[in-house]
Amino acid sequence: MTRAPLLGRKAFPIWQQIGTRWSDKDMYGHVNNVVYYAWFDTVVNRWLIEAGLLDTVVNRWLIEAGLLALKQDPVIGLVVQSSCRYASPLAYPDIVEIGLMADHVGTSSVTYRLGVFAQGAEESAAEGLFTHVYVDVATRRPTPLPEVWRAALARLSPQ
Amino acid sequence: MTRAPLLGRKAFPIWQQIGTRWSDKDMYGHVNNVVYYAWFDTVVNRWLIEAGLLDTVVNRWLIEAGLLALKQDPVIGLVVQSSCRYASPLAYPDIVEIGLMADHVGTSSVTYRLGVFAQGAEESAAEGLFTHVYVDVATRRPTPLPEVWRAALARLSPQ
Amino acid sequence: MTRAPLLGRKAFPIWQQIGTRWSDKDMYGHVNNVVYYAWFDTVVNRWLIEAGLLDTVVNRWLIEAGLLALKQDPVIGLVVQSSCRYASPLAYPDIVEIGLMADHVGTSSVTYRLGVFAQGAEESAAEGLFTHVYVDVATRRPTPLPEVWRAALARLSPQ
Amino acid sequence: MTRAPLLGRKAFPIWQQIGTRWSDKDMYGHVNNVVYYAWFDTVVNRWLIEAGLLDTVVNRWLIEAGLLALKQDPVIGLVVQSSCRYASPLAYPDIVEIGLMADHVGTSSVTYRLGVFAQGAEESAAEGLFTHVYVDVATRRPTPLPEVWRAALARLSPQ
Repeated sequence: MTRAPLLGRKAFPIWQQIGTRWSDKDMYGHVNNVVYYAWFDTVVNRWLIEAGLLDTVVNRWLIEAGLLALKQDPVIGLVVQSSCRYASPLAYPDIVEIGLMADHVGTSSVTYRLGVFAQGAEESAAEGLFTHVYVDVATRRPTPLPEVWRAALARLSPQ
Repeated sequence: MTRAPLLGRKAFPIWQQIGTRWSDKDMYGHVNNVVYYAWFDTVVNRWLIEAGLLDTVVNRWLIEAGLLALKQDPVIGLVVQSSCRYASPLAYPDIVEIGLMADHVGTSSVTYRLGVFAQGAEESAAEGLFTHVYVDVATRRPTPLPEVWRAALARLSPQ
Repeated sequence: MTRAPLLGRKAFPIWQQIGTRWSDKDMYGHVNNVVYYAWFDTVVNRWLIEAGLLDTVVNRWLIEAGLLALKQDPVIGLVVQSSCRYASPLAYPDIVEIGLMADHVGTSSVTYRLGVFAQGAEESAAEGLFTHVYVDVATRRPTPLPEVWRAALARLSPQ
Repeated sequence: MTRAPLLGRKAFPIWQQIGTRWSDKDMYGHVNNVVYYAWFDTVVNRWLIEAGLLDTVVNRWLIEAGLLALKQDPVIGLVVQSSCRYASPLAYPDIVEIGLMADHVGTSSVTYRLGVFAQGAEESAAEGLFTHVYVDVATRRPTPLPEVWRAALARLSPQ
């Protein structure tokens, strides 16, 4: 893994706030290393939903028959790798601010980079990477990202 | 809530083992009160799957097209209440043994009772209740439990 | 468990907001029943910390030597029971608003009541109870609540 | 991140089993990407405890006064980076088998490699890396691993 310095706030075009939870702490009293990945999942998926790229399954479920079914999108995203570098611990009850960018957009994949900052802090507490590969629902083979995705991901370009 | 004594091992007809996880501990060093409910969910659902009462969605998902869809059962179960009484703390890395019984089977509902024991312990560390109400998928109104469910639940009667 | 109607917003003197997380959903697409208890833990402990009743262990840990140690309070609180009634499902990505009251303050115990509302909703989606018993650190026997706690808890009286 | 093939079972000297939980699944019906990191934490810490390298805080807590305090070890381990590559999804209710090795032992750091296999499967479902840096409790500066750690870690050498 690289030892490059963690990116500052300016690099990230999109921001979300997340409140820490009592259960986020491990017995050493700081936010457990696992929790950061739950945050990454939350930030990326919230962005995808708000950008209209992910079906809000839940609403359909509530409105219709109480059954869950995924929209028959031509592509679905699978997480193929993730990683995190931890620079300084986070405390409870803090608010954390997470910056999101599309680090790399390939033919069939997107790698997101996420910067985790304590509220108001200049320096990053942690930085993560998270790669989705998009596959055809039927064949499970990688498939090119739809154009509407490329257009939306352009708004996530590094600053 | 009742102050009746927690039930001993003999009361429970079905048993499952669960390994504690590092993340189950809170900062006080014992298993957090929330984790017991994740165990209850796991024990009840594993029993339902093994009894053939719950569709193993995951396997279908893997075998078929990579999309999730619930089997169009005539009824689905909703959790309407849950509770837990905690008698003594549990440690990591312990194995816990959880006994399961059907405490009450109504026309449209099942209340499960779960006894949580440290491995080999005589006395219960905690005891939970967990009520599902079964509703018609379309109308979302309570509906009588199918006969196949009643037959299976008979094996969960208190001993 | 009671079948009394869930309390409306007016009953709760203190409010906190919590953002749902992607991982809060189970495979049925709604917030899993277990997650509500993690929220209760978070709301009660955040209130205790803000009221100055709980040592903010984490800050000391960071400032001092990097080791965790609980303040040698004369009393510590143990969770002895918890429960929740679920009235309607919650979706992701929602904000939930949780009202907090002290339902019962005994000699050595406090029972908190928590009302969970979807943002802006009039009716409660779920309601929980959560009982701490305070014990002497050395003897582990119930001990009267300190006067400073009683004064603070008065601000949590039902409205 | 490397694209090297995931290691087979033979590479790992130490094995642990973990049961999946109902709550491990996300709404797509497979084990969520975050859960693997909770497993890594569990496997590494269980090994450290069994090897006598980590104070079993919990037992002391229960035996003594009900207060948590970390043993005043000359060194503590901080997680500085973690990563995971996901090759194939895992289902509930599966048992997973996780192999552990010490991928790299530096002067002050240990990088563990973990292979996640479905029960009985030949091919790895996922592979993780997890790096601890050991620091002096007082100065928070990296400090050489004690000799007793080096001896224990020799048993974790790749096969």
